[in-house]
Amino acid sequence: MKTLSQAEFTIIGTGLMGTSLALALRGKVGKLRGVDTNPANRYAAAVYFDEMGDDLQSALVPADVVILATPIKATLGLLARVGAMVRSGTLIIDLGSAKQQIVQAMDTLPGSVLAVGGHPMCGKEQSGPTVADGTLYHGCVFVLCPSQRTTPEALDFARAMIRAIGARAIVMPADRHDTAVAAISHLPYLLSIGLVAAVQNVAQNDPMPWKLASSGFRDTSRLAGSDITMMGDTLLTNREAVLDALRVFRTQLDILESILQMADEQALRGILDSARQARLEWPQKRDSAQE
Amino acid sequence: MKTLSQAEFTIIGTGLMGTSLALALRGKVGKLRGVDTNPANRYAAAVYFDEMGDDLQSALVPADVVILATPIKATLGLLARVGAMVRSGTLIIDLGSAKQQIVQAMDTLPGSVLAVGGHPMCGKEQSGPTVADGTLYHGCVFVLCPSQRTTPEALDFARAMIRAIGARAIVMPADRHDTAVAAISHLPYLLSIGLVAAVQNVAQNDPMPWKLASSGFRDTSRLAGSDITMMGDTLLTNREAVLDALRVFRTQLDILESILQMADEQALRGILDSARQARLEWPQKRDSAQE
Repeated sequence: MKTLSQAEFTIIGTGLMGTSLALALRGKVGKLRGVDTNPANRYAAAVYFDEMGDDLQSALVPADVVILATPIKATLGLLARVGAMVRSGTLIIDLGSAKQQIVQAMDTLPGSVLAVGGHPMCGKEQSGPTVADGTLYHGCVFVLCPSQRTTPEALDFARAMIRAIGARAIVMPADRHDTAVAAISHLPYLLSIGLVAAVQNVAQNDPMPWKLASSGFRDTSRLAGSDITMMGDTLLTNREAVLDALRVFRTQLDILESILQMADEQALRGILDSARQARLEWPQKRDSAQE
Repeated sequence: MKTLSQAEFTIIGTGLMGTSLALALRGKVGKLRGVDTNPANRYAAAVYFDEMGDDLQSALVPADVVILATPIKATLGLLARVGAMVRSGTLIIDLGSAKQQIVQAMDTLPGSVLAVGGHPMCGKEQSGPTVADGTLYHGCVFVLCPSQRTTPEALDFARAMIRAIGARAIVMPADRHDTAVAAISHLPYLLSIGLVAAVQNVAQNDPMPWKLASSGFRDTSRLAGSDITMMGDTLLTNREAVLDALRVFRTQLDILESILQMADEQALRGILDSARQARLEWPQKRDSAQE
């Protein structure tokens, strides 16, 4: 494989994640090509790329590295097509937030193609190239999930790219990733959606909840503003793990509800204190060295 | 009643809310006395008050205005005692986040005492006087719930105090307040606790969720770090409204779960899009003029 500084990148999907990646890689790679079927995205993102277009074939032929920065269903569709368009030895990396189906699709790529699943643990609730940010990946964990098309050289190249954008690589099997993100990313999104839907429901009788809502509601419901195509795809692609996480959450909520029904102050304090301690200790657990 | 600039204030409870109020009122009122049973709070907050002590009686006798800035159960206990300690015409205002029980307790105060329920819609997940902030109340909605001890003059005084600290008064009955905050404040807190408890549960098998958790988890779980005495009191005091809000949320979660189980993409997009729109329109609804 070429070195990072020589490699020609083709980034498919020039929304928030793809365009932010281009910004973060500028000046550190051989060439940056963007491909998007959405004219508004192409127009807004063009300035950050060396070349921009809507033709997949012509952008893929010269690519040493292909980044799939599209919603997961589009990524699965692309994985079924790009294998036949790229040169031998081209490395494909995706950025989707559920990895088992992606890695399975990578396993079916032609044997001459390299591929590794990727998931940068960062984002914004806004979307599109107009909110792109070259520092978006700084300090974030970037998960890599190997496929049968991941050679040691491919993994080394992906690690070098992740270092170059200021992120930190963690390598793990796709199923381990999917279980973890169902709990810490997809479940919070569903709770955020459910919270807004509940407030909508309560506010049908009296709009006062909307007027009194403050920073607590703002933060707890922030994820509900996320792009629904991206998140809908993610929930459906990681459906089993999300349903498992939902069942675990529901059990916790049942406990809280029955404690409240019984007005059991001691039990309530116990569960609130345990969760508070775990939340306060989380930053240390996140940043601790062992993986 | 005296004017705001002449009035002598006694603030009972010198944690985050009480001490931030003292900071916001400094130089705008006649005198600021602090009372706290916790020596550490007294020590940290003393510099922001003209006088600081632990003796209720001696701090209450000269008070024109008494602010109860304690957790709700302590406030209910104080309301049973302070009526006999204050002078005729003294105004009592509390800062608790559930109002029906408070206002009912105010109704039983001696007829010569004035009292109005208060709830400033602001806060932090940290607590104590060391994180006090004189701008905490800036721009926030400050709900006033009249009791049978609320005269027009008492309400005018409370409004003047709220203007002086940069907040915006909204007057409403206690039951209307309690239903609204159950949905937009107490429910989000419970979801935040339930989320952390669910992640704790999933992470028993594999600590990876703690390592991958990022800004989505951070914001959705922020409220779980709140002071458990304050929040436990609040949940138990506003129990019926909280259980109602929980039932409404549960129905929404049931719908989301069955849509996911059926993998019904169209229905999923519908519910995600509706919640997303409502979340994005919230700031306008919050700031619109009609109340």
